[in-house]
Amino acid sequence: MNATRPLRILGLDPGLRRTGWGVIACEGARISHVAHGVIAPNDSLPFSERLLILFEEISAVVAAHAPDEAAVEETFMNTNAQSALKLGHARAMALVAPARAGLPVAEYAASVVKKAVVGTGGADKAQVGWMIARLLPTAGKTSADAADALAVAIAHAHTRSARRVA
Amino acid sequence: MNATRPLRILGLDPGLRRTGWGVIACEGARISHVAHGVIAPNDSLPFSERLLILFEEISAVVAAHAPDEAAVEETFMNTNAQSALKLGHARAMALVAPARAGLPVAEYAASVVKKAVVGTGGADKAQVGWMIARLLPTAGKTSADAADALAVAIAHAHTRSARRVA
Repeated sequence: MNATRPLRILGLDPGLRRTGWGVIACEGARISHVAHGVIAPNDSLPFSERLLILFEEISAVVAAHAPDEAAVEETFMNTNAQSALKLGHARAMALVAPARAGLPVAEYAASVVKKAVVGTGGADKAQVGWMIARLLPTAGKTSADAADALAVAIAHAHTRSARRVA
Repeated sequence: MNATRPLRILGLDPGLRRTGWGVIACEGARISHVAHGVIAPNDSLPFSERLLILFEEISAVVAAHAPDEAAVEETFMNTNAQSALKLGHARAMALVAPARAGLPVAEYAASVVKKAVVGTGGADKAQVGWMIARLLPTAGKTSADAADALAVAIAHAHTRSARRVA
């Protein structure tokens, strides 16, 4: 971490079709928006190429925004083994690209993320989006995937400061 | 591919605890052993670190042995969603590390690999190991994971030459 600027956290909401990412800055309890986006590899490409695009684009986000830490959502697995296997491939890109850049990578269950942002683990996507707009007013319009990624980053910021106080 | 030497194929049998790899050379129907091994990240490390070790070690194998193409086993998913999700993370390393080095990456079902090497899709690990020792006599002793990886490489070699003849 650079001592002259606030800590930056990269949040990632991984998916093979759409991986959301968001970077926030935090100083103590104050958080602010830095950048966000969605990576959506063309699904007509070979599987290994789609994964490579996720890897390269997440690596590019890390290079461009220089986060100090990363946080990745543990997607809820209410699905069959074949879908879980595919999601695992995409999620691995969100873990390994920041790790390769030397960042510590934390993982948070979706319910923990929702509780940190909305106050209840059962919040829906619309509630998460609404709270992201209030917590990060300079973020502007965010897609559901980017809002989820920013929410993971916020959950990590909360957990970090709770850990420091404890 | 370098025109002055036979085509080299990297086979990978991915797993989070043990990822087998094997490199063979082939000229037409003739195949020979180049190298093989197993990557076993320490399972006390954080998950993202274990994935990073798989990524870096597979990348190192690609750099050391300069394969022209890669082939990865499609592990049979007779398991629950949580196990499949984890395996997906490990398997993604076997797909993305060679892809990042510019190699085309093919995927083969385990039954196709067994049929190519043993002659029947229902062969067990001992039969695969026995055939690998006969097909690649200079390989010496191979663990089950490395033998499976060499078997994937052989299956890819067979598929390539069948494609050329057709």
